[in-house]
Amino acid sequence: MSRVTARRKTIRLSPAGRIARPDTLAVEEPLEIRVDGASLTVTMRTPGSDIDLVHGFLFGEDLIGSVDDIVSARYCAGTDEQGRNTYNVLDIHLRAPVDIRSRHVLTTGACGLCGKTALDEVRTHSRYPIPHESTTISTDILATLPKRLRDEQKLFDATGGLHAAGLFTTDGTLLAAREDIGRHNAVDKVIGWAVRENRVPAHDLVLVVSSRASFELAQKAVMAGIPILAAVSAPSSLAVDLAAESELTLVGFLRGETMNIYTGEHRLT
Amino acid sequence: MSRVTARRKTIRLSPAGRIARPDTLAVEEPLEIRVDGASLTVTMRTPGSDIDLVHGFLFGEDLIGSVDDIVSARYCAGTDEQGRNTYNVLDIHLRAPVDIRSRHVLTTGACGLCGKTALDEVRTHSRYPIPHESTTISTDILATLPKRLRDEQKLFDATGGLHAAGLFTTDGTLLAAREDIGRHNAVDKVIGWAVRENRVPAHDLVLVVSSRASFELAQKAVMAGIPILAAVSAPSSLAVDLAAESELTLVGFLRGETMNIYTGEHRLT
Repeated sequence: MSRVTARRKTIRLSPAGRIARPDTLAVEEPLEIRVDGASLTVTMRTPGSDIDLVHGFLFGEDLIGSVDDIVSARYCAGTDEQGRNTYNVLDIHLRAPVDIRSRHVLTTGACGLCGKTALDEVRTHSRYPIPHESTTISTDILATLPKRLRDEQKLFDATGGLHAAGLFTTDGTLLAAREDIGRHNAVDKVIGWAVRENRVPAHDLVLVVSSRASFELAQKAVMAGIPILAAVSAPSSLAVDLAAESELTLVGFLRGETMNIYTGEHRLT
Repeated sequence: MSRVTARRKTIRLSPAGRIARPDTLAVEEPLEIRVDGASLTVTMRTPGSDIDLVHGFLFGEDLIGSVDDIVSARYCAGTDEQGRNTYNVLDIHLRAPVDIRSRHVLTTGACGLCGKTALDEVRTHSRYPIPHESTTISTDILATLPKRLRDEQKLFDATGGLHAAGLFTTDGTLLAAREDIGRHNAVDKVIGWAVRENRVPAHDLVLVVSSRASFELAQKAVMAGIPILAAVSAPSSLAVDLAAESELTLVGFLRGETMNIYTGEHRLT
């Protein structure tokens, strides 16, 4: 089942002329997440590692605290016009029933009064606060991780259109890498992997993302107790503020041997 | 009120050494959109052009069809710890009351059965189908638009962390450009501008985005009747499928004189 890339006809115009050819694109499809039969959310994602994605999403939203909180995760029998299962609806059966109508989604549920409120929401809900003294990593090793992650990005090479997230140990070993058209999904997938492997709280791991670092990505790291988040591109103001409040080490513009350390420099050696 | 960028301390490591300095970041703050007092959604956005953003968002979600459907848009008196208005809550008073609890959000509300369902949702809701024969643009002019948009990206120059969207006429005149940390917000802002200027349906305009072209962005173009969407980076499979179904001309990887034409080549001369 290769549903992560798809080919579509394209006309390529360049100074060399006009060429008709197929182009390989990243697949984007809706995934509906249901909890005990009730629709919780629909995310536009690249198919693959859906079970990881759902574990990571529910964990990030504080609906589960460990893999044991999920009794089962099953694709519903949604079918397309040819009667084939679309594998785009996942129903999650939780050990302890939750009334999802009374839950708001953390990322966007914080009332809009100010960023401060959003920060408070995350701090209130995180089960695994990051210890001030925890893992350290050498900047020499950190500098190698984006390339290591990039080497795993087989889909990016084909499509040019996918984000990646990777979980590393502090000696630079890659534990899990996932790609997705949405960077939040890529992060949910690797954190979901950690949840399923009972590696959460991940106080000993480093999360590397191929993208910018938004509030949402920093939030997901904080919720999982990950002490170090490194992004290839720029962080937002609110991501830096959350990192400062949550003792998260946040590195941005990690490119070759240069990097910007916004918070938690004490974890870099 | 310069709330679009913020300065934060950073340590820059490079082969040249370690430098402590302030870094300019894109501001990310929650904006809560309320309709007649009821919370509709919270989006993480870069402050600025909020009124445009709300018009574009409500239009894209089919809650309004023109500027006349909005009686008023007012910031609520949400205050921060110092008692200052945060300007992060906007309450919209609609001419015809809508029970927003019975409305689902189009982008993520399509049930997850398959991408086909998502395409159907958009087609069903678009008030302004794109005519097969409409505006054309020369590829020579199209090739110049990303640089023209880039020249407007003052915030990107400062922060490296913002997306841009621009609405152009087919002779290459820039009508509106907006930046945001979220590319969907940048598009909502320019389409909201068009709604407020009574330029919708925008059958004569070209939408250029500095980013990839996801399903969501293609949907916003289709809802506004915009016939040509050009992206600097890759489209997704579902964006191309929606473009094909909706007679939208979709161009990707628009860089210098090269571009990929995925659909609607008849509008390029």
